[in-house]
Amino acid sequence: MPNRKDLIVGVDLGGTSMRAMVVDTSYQILGEDKRRTQAKDRPRKLIEEIADLIEEAVDKAEVKWSAIRAVSIGAPGSVDPVQGVVRHAPNLGWHDVRLGSKLKEILGVPVLVENDVNVGVVGEHALGAAQGAHDVVGIFVGTGIGGGIMFHDELYDGTRGAAGELGHMVLQVDGPKCGCGRRGCAEALASRTAMERDVRAAIKKGRKSIVLDIMKERDQDRMTSRIIQLALRRRDPVMRQMMERAQYYLGILVANVVNLLDPECIVIGGGIADRMHEDFVKPIREVAWRHYLQQRDAQRIKILAGQLGDNAGGLGAVVLARHRLGS
Amino acid sequence: MPNRKDLIVGVDLGGTSMRAMVVDTSYQILGEDKRRTQAKDRPRKLIEEIADLIEEAVDKAEVKWSAIRAVSIGAPGSVDPVQGVVRHAPNLGWHDVRLGSKLKEILGVPVLVENDVNVGVVGEHALGAAQGAHDVVGIFVGTGIGGGIMFHDELYDGTRGAAGELGHMVLQVDGPKCGCGRRGCAEALASRTAMERDVRAAIKKGRKSIVLDIMKERDQDRMTSRIIQLALRRRDPVMRQMMERAQYYLGILVANVVNLLDPECIVIGGGIADRMHEDFVKPIREVAWRHYLQQRDAQRIKILAGQLGDNAGGLGAVVLARHRLGS
Repeated sequence: MPNRKDLIVGVDLGGTSMRAMVVDTSYQILGEDKRRTQAKDRPRKLIEEIADLIEEAVDKAEVKWSAIRAVSIGAPGSVDPVQGVVRHAPNLGWHDVRLGSKLKEILGVPVLVENDVNVGVVGEHALGAAQGAHDVVGIFVGTGIGGGIMFHDELYDGTRGAAGELGHMVLQVDGPKCGCGRRGCAEALASRTAMERDVRAAIKKGRKSIVLDIMKERDQDRMTSRIIQLALRRRDPVMRQMMERAQYYLGILVANVVNLLDPECIVIGGGIADRMHEDFVKPIREVAWRHYLQQRDAQRIKILAGQLGDNAGGLGAVVLARHRLGS
Repeated sequence: MPNRKDLIVGVDLGGTSMRAMVVDTSYQILGEDKRRTQAKDRPRKLIEEIADLIEEAVDKAEVKWSAIRAVSIGAPGSVDPVQGVVRHAPNLGWHDVRLGSKLKEILGVPVLVENDVNVGVVGEHALGAAQGAHDVVGIFVGTGIGGGIMFHDELYDGTRGAAGELGHMVLQVDGPKCGCGRRGCAEALASRTAMERDVRAAIKKGRKSIVLDIMKERDQDRMTSRIIQLALRRRDPVMRQMMERAQYYLGILVANVVNLLDPECIVIGGGIADRMHEDFVKPIREVAWRHYLQQRDAQRIKILAGQLGDNAGGLGAVVLARHRLGS
C-alpha cells in the first residue's frame, strides 16, 4: 500500500455526472467513485458533494489520506487555473466559483482546476492516442463540442484562458441556431444535440425511424451515444443520414483546424467516439483530407479516435497536476 | 557608409510585383528597387531577375556587396525554410524550386526563404502593429487571404509548414466556389477577388455602380484596392454593400480564430487595410466581438490594421533573417 505522498486524485466534473479516481505514479487507478451531478444545487452544496465523492474514492482505493498529494479537477466551462476559479460553467450554473480554495479548505490538500476538455487532451497526449505528438488538437463531441490545444507539449490556454472553443467555430453563416445564441457554429451542426434535433425533425416530417422507440425501450428522454449506436446497428436510415451529415461537418471542422494550425495529431473524443471508434472517425477523416489546402503529406497529420474513453479527463487531470506540481 | 557585414536585403516576392530593400541594423531602408514579376518566365529566368533586382537595390543603397550579410525572401506559396525550397507557388507556377541555393550561387551570400505572409506577420510583430504581443495572428486580405501565426514570439509553421492558411477556412458550407476548388472558404467570400466578382454580378443584374467607370478611367482591368477606395469615397452603393459583406465575413473569420486560439493580437494587413486603415478594420472588429464565445475581457484581444504597409514583407524578412542567423 502506497504510503508516500505520491497519489493524486483526478476528478472529472461533468454537467450530468462526476467521477473521482485515485491514481498512482504509474497511472494505475487504485480506486474510484462516480455519481450524478446535482447541478441544481448551490455551488457550496455541490462542492461539499465533490469533496464527499473524492473521500469515497480514497476509501475505495484503500489508501490513507496522508498518501494524497493533491486533487486535480477538470471542470466544464471557462476556468482560471492560476486562481483555481471556475469563471463560467453554464451546465452547473456557476459564475466565478472559487472551487480550488474551497475544496482545499475541506480536504486539506492542494487542489488544481482546469477546463474539462483541456485535461482530456492532456490525458490523450500523455497516455492515449496522441502519445509522441508535440502539437495536438483535441475535439470532444458530446452534447456540445469542446476542444483543447497543446503546442510543443504544453497546454495552450490563450490570452484570456478561452482558447480551444472550436465548437463555436462558424461553419455555416446563417446556419441553425446554436446554444450560444449565434448561428451555424460547429456545435449547432454536429453535436449529439444537433443530431437529435435533426432526427426528431425528420420523424416529425413523417420519416420512418426507430430512434424514438429505442429511447422508449431504454427509458431515455435524450438521444445518448448508446442510443445512436443501437440505431445505427439496426440500420435506421434517419439516424444514418444525420450521423453522415454530422460527420461531414466535423470533417470540415477538422480541415479548418488543419488549414490554420497544421498540427501533428487531432484526437476525436467524447461519448460517440468512445463507442464507435473508427466507424465514427473514418468518414470525418476522409472529408477533412479533401478540404486540406495543402495536400502534400496529408497523411502525416494523424486523425485518431481517443483511446482513454471515460478516463481521459480524470487521468489527464492527474498528468497535468504532476506537471504543474513538478514530479 | 556601413562597411561591416551587417546589412540584410529583404525581398518581397509577389505574384504581380517584387521588391528588394537593403536594411541596416536599426531597420532603416538604405535603398530599394521594385519591378513587375514576370511570372510567365521559367523559374531559372525569374531567379536571375530577382538577383538583378537585389543588385540594383544594393547599388541604390550605395553600399558595397561586402557589407551584405544575407538575403531574405518572402515567397508567395508553401515553402520549406530549412531547405530554402519553394514547394508550391501557384501565382508563379512554381513547384519545388530551389530558390535559396540557386540565388546563393549567383549572389554569393546566404539566402533565406520563408512564406510571404509569415514574414509580413513577423514584420508587424517586431516593428509594427503587434509590437509587444507574444501570440499574434496576421490576416492579409488581397487577391487572396493569407495568414501567419506567432506563438510565444516565434513563427509557427506547423507540422508540414502549412500552418496559417486561414483564407481556406470554410465559413459557409456550399458557399461560392473558391480558387482552391472547394466552396465557401473565407477567400471566396471576402477577398478582393470575391468582392470584384460580387460587384460585377450586381452590375450585370442592372444595379447602378461607378466601379467599372473608375476602372476604365484608370486603365485598370482589375478592381484594385485603390479602385475600391475611390468607389467608396464616391459613395458607390454597390461597392459599399460588397465591402460590408466582406467585412462581415472577415469578422466571422476573426471570431473563429479568436474562439480557437484566443491570441493577444490580430493584425489585418494587405492592400485594402493599408489604404483604409480603421475604416476597414472597425466593422470587422465589431462583427468579431459579437461572435466571441467568451465575452469576458473581449477588448483585451487587439484587432488592428497593419502599420508597415508595403514594407511589412521586406522588413519582416530581414527581422526573421537576423533572428535565424543570430544577432
